[in-house]
Amino acid sequence: MRLAELSDRSGVSTATIKYYLREGVLPPGRRITATQAEYDEEHLRRLRLVRALVQIARVPVATVREVLASVDDTSLNRTFRMGAALWALPGGPEPEEDDALAAARREVDRLLERDGWAHAREIGELSPAHRALTGAVATLLRLGYPCDADLLAPYARQVRQMAVQGLDDIEEFPTHLEQVEAAVAYTLLFEPVLLGLRRLALEEETVERFGL
Amino acid sequence: MRLAELSDRSGVSTATIKYYLREGVLPPGRRITATQAEYDEEHLRRLRLVRALVQIARVPVATVREVLASVDDTSLNRTFRMGAALWALPGGPEPEEDDALAAARREVDRLLERDGWAHAREIGELSPAHRALTGAVATLLRLGYPCDADLLAPYARQVRQMAVQGLDDIEEFPTHLEQVEAAVAYTLLFEPVLLGLRRLALEEETVERFGL
Repeated sequence: MRLAELSDRSGVSTATIKYYLREGVLPPGRRITATQAEYDEEHLRRLRLVRALVQIARVPVATVREVLASVDDTSLNRTFRMGAALWALPGGPEPEEDDALAAARREVDRLLERDGWAHAREIGELSPAHRALTGAVATLLRLGYPCDADLLAPYARQVRQMAVQGLDDIEEFPTHLEQVEAAVAYTLLFEPVLLGLRRLALEEETVERFGL
Repeated sequence: MRLAELSDRSGVSTATIKYYLREGVLPPGRRITATQAEYDEEHLRRLRLVRALVQIARVPVATVREVLASVDDTSLNRTFRMGAALWALPGGPEPEEDDALAAARREVDRLLERDGWAHAREIGELSPAHRALTGAVATLLRLGYPCDADLLAPYARQVRQMAVQGLDDIEEFPTHLEQVEAAVAYTLLFEPVLLGLRRLALEEETVERFGL
């Protein structure tokens, strides 16, 4: 397809597509004349991913370039390619080292040990996901709300089930590249869906128990 | 306790406490002299909630005042008091009315019908949680990623289980007021914990399947 059709089908303006091409986050089309290039389904898919990262997950274009370099690096295994976005995202400010953070580390470690999350324990705070969890638990503790391994355990099992489901869905995609792209998109874009579902579930369950 | 102790135990500066008192989001202490007042555990709990809403959930102080008015209004039933924060939060920009939003509405309605979420269907888009979910699904659809009732169903059941667990935890608090306060705090503050857990679960499951 030509640039105009790529724009129509993706809903991304031709100016933005040209910007992505210049920035190297979208691979060039196949030259057919001096001024025209031909794009394919792979470009369309990549364009959707770039737009998702930039517009929805608010990832800077320079970071998108890094993420895509990992996504496309077939010398890496799928774990690293799929996790590329999470590792490249800005991790937020360094958490304050205080008693709450120390307690949060202890409870997260107890949780991971109990549920046998061996890899998470091994990777530890090198992982941005691990740091995000520990930081969020520390915030609750700092505010005086209880949040220990016992309270977290049922949630950990639920999200693990969700992760199994999510990766089953992702493995349905036919090629490794498509699986990796889907994992990157799904990890970030599904978060608002889950939060919306949770708020609605809390509402449903509250009305169920206490009436309207 | 005096102001200084309230500040020590809450970790909130005396200047901020005085500001909250002036703004009416913290009830005045019991006057013991012309210049001194006495505060109790209820003040401490309320101060923690205010700080959670303002500092973590980024709720404007004027909105906190509205939320607390609902929390304290014993003529309302617990459903409304517990949901006060969600209904008072800014809902973000109005979603664009397009085919994706129409499709998202259809799929969310199919999901709620199938899983028998009768109240959520009845309240519909009046509920900010419902609008948030529909908007998030529309975003995925607009980007060309699949997101229909079939894909959402297992997640809906998981978050429903989480809501049951969450409300069980909340009902452990001894008074209605404490339950309502805990529900408000928990609804908002637990979101980053869940997202952290989910990212870590995805990482664990990815390493499990594809190695390190």
